[in-house]
Amino acid sequence: MYQSTLFSKTKKETPPDEVSLNAQLLLQAGYVDKLVAGVYSYLPLGLKVLNNIQEIVRAEMNKIGGQEILMPALSPKANWQKTGRWEGFDVLFKLKGSGDKEYALGASHEEVVTPLVDKYVNSYRDLPVSLYQIQTKFRDEPRPKSGLLRGREFSMKDLYSFHRDQADLDKYYEKFIAAYKNIFSRCGLDAKLVKSGGGTFSKFSDEFQVFTPHGEDIVFSCSKCDLHQNKEIFAGDKCPNCQGKLEENKAIEVGNIFKLGSKYAKDFGLTYTDEKGQEQDVVMGCYGIGISRLMGAIVEVHHDEAGIIWPASITPFKVHLIPIGADKNDEVKSETDKLYKALQAKNIGVLYDDRLDMGVGQKLADADLLGMPVRLIISAKTLENGGCEVKRRDSDKVEIMPFDKLVEHLEK
Amino acid sequence: MYQSTLFSKTKKETPPDEVSLNAQLLLQAGYVDKLVAGVYSYLPLGLKVLNNIQEIVRAEMNKIGGQEILMPALSPKANWQKTGRWEGFDVLFKLKGSGDKEYALGASHEEVVTPLVDKYVNSYRDLPVSLYQIQTKFRDEPRPKSGLLRGREFSMKDLYSFHRDQADLDKYYEKFIAAYKNIFSRCGLDAKLVKSGGGTFSKFSDEFQVFTPHGEDIVFSCSKCDLHQNKEIFAGDKCPNCQGKLEENKAIEVGNIFKLGSKYAKDFGLTYTDEKGQEQDVVMGCYGIGISRLMGAIVEVHHDEAGIIWPASITPFKVHLIPIGADKNDEVKSETDKLYKALQAKNIGVLYDDRLDMGVGQKLADADLLGMPVRLIISAKTLENGGCEVKRRDSDKVEIMPFDKLVEHLEK
Repeated sequence: MYQSTLFSKTKKETPPDEVSLNAQLLLQAGYVDKLVAGVYSYLPLGLKVLNNIQEIVRAEMNKIGGQEILMPALSPKANWQKTGRWEGFDVLFKLKGSGDKEYALGASHEEVVTPLVDKYVNSYRDLPVSLYQIQTKFRDEPRPKSGLLRGREFSMKDLYSFHRDQADLDKYYEKFIAAYKNIFSRCGLDAKLVKSGGGTFSKFSDEFQVFTPHGEDIVFSCSKCDLHQNKEIFAGDKCPNCQGKLEENKAIEVGNIFKLGSKYAKDFGLTYTDEKGQEQDVVMGCYGIGISRLMGAIVEVHHDEAGIIWPASITPFKVHLIPIGADKNDEVKSETDKLYKALQAKNIGVLYDDRLDMGVGQKLADADLLGMPVRLIISAKTLENGGCEVKRRDSDKVEIMPFDKLVEHLEK
Repeated sequence: MYQSTLFSKTKKETPPDEVSLNAQLLLQAGYVDKLVAGVYSYLPLGLKVLNNIQEIVRAEMNKIGGQEILMPALSPKANWQKTGRWEGFDVLFKLKGSGDKEYALGASHEEVVTPLVDKYVNSYRDLPVSLYQIQTKFRDEPRPKSGLLRGREFSMKDLYSFHRDQADLDKYYEKFIAAYKNIFSRCGLDAKLVKSGGGTFSKFSDEFQVFTPHGEDIVFSCSKCDLHQNKEIFAGDKCPNCQGKLEENKAIEVGNIFKLGSKYAKDFGLTYTDEKGQEQDVVMGCYGIGISRLMGAIVEVHHDEAGIIWPASITPFKVHLIPIGADKNDEVKSETDKLYKALQAKNIGVLYDDRLDMGVGQKLADADLLGMPVRLIISAKTLENGGCEVKRRDSDKVEIMPFDKLVEHLEK
């Protein structure tokens, strides 16, 4: 893509009303725009990142048998009353429509997915079922100050699994832990599995937490074994497993998984008939990942003083192509054009900084802020040296490479 | 995909509370589920169709320079007050959140996109700009009875273009008409360009209308020239162009495009500085396509008494593979498995009806209802005749083809 045609532009200053690091960087770089507190628009580059994260999540969910659906945000009051969450879910947005109909805006989808599954599941032969969606959630957070980490409207993947008994749920739950580990590692995050409180319907839940200095959560980690516990449930000063010393970490929760038991199945009469003709309650699990939160978490982890450093798996463009002096040197311009076309021909994503009226310093500062993982610089000097300068965003090492070798290298 | 693993199932009966043909067929076939009036969930096959339509729309919008973004549904009351639509937009959903903050749920996005563009456009050099999103819209329709044609929550592509003057808008508007014609024709629809009323901000707008017996709109068409006018604006009994005879058609509006002038630019102070340093109002256009409505319209047009007939461009699977007698004949089973793998290896989408306990009649009735464009039947008899039976959903012609020739044929 030609950078001159890009709608969004970088800003010189950090936006004054943002206190979170992820929102400061994403706003300054033009990835997102803030409409009101906790509500963001995704601009062209930001939407590409969001979509790349979605694709990773989607692939891993499909791999473990998840079937993708799309449920609505509007859901009727009656469903939320059945589960006790019309009053019990503190951040639920409620609204009234024509004919005095009352709705909630989906903050989670047990109230929609459970009666939906009830329409299609009758027998043990119909189980297990695993349904997920990547959809917009609404939660009326009282004071959203963490940028993409806690929004009033945000993108979420939520999967619900339905089983004949606890043992089948337990087995699936283990598969899920593995799938989540894949997702976070593919997104460039080292997420720890952390025991946490279970809320209303189970004693414990499992969270995936990424340790960063600006996390909202506190996790106690054993320095000897691999035990991690959320502060919520932790009591004591030594590891309950091995008596090892504990470390306190600030962390961002990037995913959570719950065993729901039959709470929602009972609320909606979701049962199945077993081999003996007996009616049994379905057992459920639910598994969430905030897609936009994940984007924020990645920025919190992958940045330096100059800007964002995108992991290659989710970057909007793999390569940032920057000619220097192209306004005065036709060869620099034509060679850059040539390399741009060669990279495009190999389906390597390139952002081409074709802005002729922009100084070198500003171009390089923009590239640092925007954070594409590979930067290619072409000038009269690099051409003289036989090609273009290659620099990775996360390293200071600079290399000169001829074009053909470079394209081959990037294709890998 | 193995049909036995599919979450959704076909129903024997038409749902009693649906009066629209598109919703009856889509519900019976298990493409969608109704939560409340005008609010649907998309089940696995339905979501595939929706995504296929989105991909066609996205490709055509990118081709004419549209940049994709994603704006939120929640938008602050103040923005809607500025345009007079807090009170003036009759189907606007309104809600109150924490701190007594009031929001509208986006029914259209002029109130969000105009101030967004104002943050990035200053000079004539920043224009034109063309931004679109594929996003969920909310409209509190009083009595939604038309299935996917008129929902309270629905998927829409809305594009907004920003220009330095009317002439530049007019030029872009013509490009748009061509892009929309491509979209509808790629979706298997013959959409007519129809002059219609312009609403508050322009005298006329242009609609794309598909003629069907159950359309909500009425269009008068000239039998001699290519003039089409919505009943809204039409007066008279002969074509105003050529005095030709007029025909009355029922139609579904599948897209509309408006020249907005500077109404919204003025509301939000969106101006630019021209070459002479003068401040000028930006001129806007807006261009909508209801993605879910398009899905409904396609069903209204492409069906017969037995079910849906998907155009190949948007079908969830190209091929429906149906073995007959596989429960009793190992060769039928193993040959079908072999063909399934061969088709998958060529990236040809296949729904494999692997249900062993299901009778032939039910399998074929399901295939008719579900509507995949190509049906392949394998039985002892077809194997004896040298391959499998090939039948297109929209034709009665049946052909026997050997597997290798068939795969080659379908790859095209």
